[in-house]
Amino acid sequence: MKAITLTDSQDPTSLALAETPTPELRDGEVLVKVHAAGVNRGDLLQAKGHYPPPPGASEIIGLECSGVIEDPGTTDRDRGEKVACLLAGGGYADYVAVPEGQLLPIPEGYSFTEAASIVEVACTVWSNLGMLAGLKEGQTVLIHGGAGGIGTFAIQLCKQLGANVAVTAGTSEKLETCRELGADILINYREQDFSEELKGRCDVILDIMGAKYLRQNLRSLAEDGQLIIIGLQGGVKTEINLGALLPRRLSVRGTTLRARSVEGKAEVVRSTAEHVWPLLADARISHHIHTVLPLSEAAQAHALLGSGEVTGKIVLEVDA
Amino acid sequence: MKAITLTDSQDPTSLALAETPTPELRDGEVLVKVHAAGVNRGDLLQAKGHYPPPPGASEIIGLECSGVIEDPGTTDRDRGEKVACLLAGGGYADYVAVPEGQLLPIPEGYSFTEAASIVEVACTVWSNLGMLAGLKEGQTVLIHGGAGGIGTFAIQLCKQLGANVAVTAGTSEKLETCRELGADILINYREQDFSEELKGRCDVILDIMGAKYLRQNLRSLAEDGQLIIIGLQGGVKTEINLGALLPRRLSVRGTTLRARSVEGKAEVVRSTAEHVWPLLADARISHHIHTVLPLSEAAQAHALLGSGEVTGKIVLEVDA
Repeated sequence: MKAITLTDSQDPTSLALAETPTPELRDGEVLVKVHAAGVNRGDLLQAKGHYPPPPGASEIIGLECSGVIEDPGTTDRDRGEKVACLLAGGGYADYVAVPEGQLLPIPEGYSFTEAASIVEVACTVWSNLGMLAGLKEGQTVLIHGGAGGIGTFAIQLCKQLGANVAVTAGTSEKLETCRELGADILINYREQDFSEELKGRCDVILDIMGAKYLRQNLRSLAEDGQLIIIGLQGGVKTEINLGALLPRRLSVRGTTLRARSVEGKAEVVRSTAEHVWPLLADARISHHIHTVLPLSEAAQAHALLGSGEVTGKIVLEVDA
Repeated sequence: MKAITLTDSQDPTSLALAETPTPELRDGEVLVKVHAAGVNRGDLLQAKGHYPPPPGASEIIGLECSGVIEDPGTTDRDRGEKVACLLAGGGYADYVAVPEGQLLPIPEGYSFTEAASIVEVACTVWSNLGMLAGLKEGQTVLIHGGAGGIGTFAIQLCKQLGANVAVTAGTSEKLETCRELGADILINYREQDFSEELKGRCDVILDIMGAKYLRQNLRSLAEDGQLIIIGLQGGVKTEINLGALLPRRLSVRGTTLRARSVEGKAEVVRSTAEHVWPLLADARISHHIHTVLPLSEAAQAHALLGSGEVTGKIVLEVDA
């Protein structure tokens, strides 16, 4: 089969299609013929060598896809079933082996391309805001990078949960996108200190910046507030004042979806299918695709996502 | 009435009985005639000026007591009812005003002195390990300062919950006390690096050291592990590597009981009465009193607790 590989392991932009072995199935896995694969920030990190696949996972880039079951392996699935897949890796390819627990139905009314754009973001946002933080109606949530792939989805999910939604973004155009999706409080991080605007008001913060925002994030939390860090774009190490946590009972929590075990991923997928898929079927949450490119142009897709000039998701389509 | 006051506000050891006004009741409060008051580390901090009472609370030291209702105020309680009380302050006195939600029954078979020794520790440990961390059967918990007031109680509670209990302490005598209470893994922190022994194994850590132990505590946590910081005896500021949180989905959480609202304290008291009081009544958890002194010797009680040479609780008795 063909898959995207690094032609020069030292050059993260050297992504090109190459002939590679079709994956062999392990017990409980199905072989999926890929129709479309979503592009995620983790993919860019992996190309740079910073985000290696977990033990046993495919070395090929790609954390989500949609397609058709080509070989059900030892499972009771049917050949030809259309599926969306959460992956530990392997999506940028003609075929990928997927543990059965990581299969989801194609959301009602979605194309393959649309389905491939939504799996990783839905599982990431739901596992953090729904399953971990337990975000409730009437609470205030802050979403950093509101116009990105995670942000555009998170705004809509939080509004569906009845939360008051604050966002940060770097341009007024991006903030306008957030407002259209339902965001209530819009903060341009280039012009305002978000912690000044939100001091003591946030029940939950979904953060992608890590070290750079830690002090301001803690300042923004309300009593019993939870800071949930899912990205470290602003660095990993910084000083923490633990004395800020105790009187307001604050929590600092970090997660990644990819590092979860097969069982852990299956639990997230089950809960996401139950709580989020119905919201996709009737478009209470809409997908937000920035652009679609052929799989062969993965390098261009990475450059585009890395530029920061993206609103919504980038999807790669496999040629029929 | 008489109450302990600082005769020299600059000298935390200048604790002596002095005449002060009897507290006036607010709506929903009862007046309790104090029989015994427990001594807590927060009391030592307050004497040093580091732990001011929350707004509206008594300026008098003392976070727990037992006694008899002298005046039920606007509540439906009966004059003469024996009660144990969680306090925001005011326990080192002949009388204290207590919001009704912070009253507990005297545990079955307990004296006033025994009851005064158990309220703060039971509410602190249950609110953190039971209500916040949700400690479950089969999980591993690490309790720092296993031989102290919090530690001796926490070991027993965790064993009742079916957890595997690791403790740290500074002498073999203290570790022997922990072992007798049920601790499974004994670590002398003067001789061993606890994070070397427990690396990646702890589901929950109950910490009183803060900054000094942060790195080692994070290293000791298992996947989905929670570090719960309730004391900062080892400092407040330190470097944190947020990159350590994400792959194992770790949480750093801080709490204090005293800073909770009246409603928040009532919720903790209700849950503690429900889940912990039955374990006291039939001695599945035993109280652990180090020594009893008259209220007039509060200064000596503070010196003793500050020495670190204490196993269990110190209680002050009010002269009849």
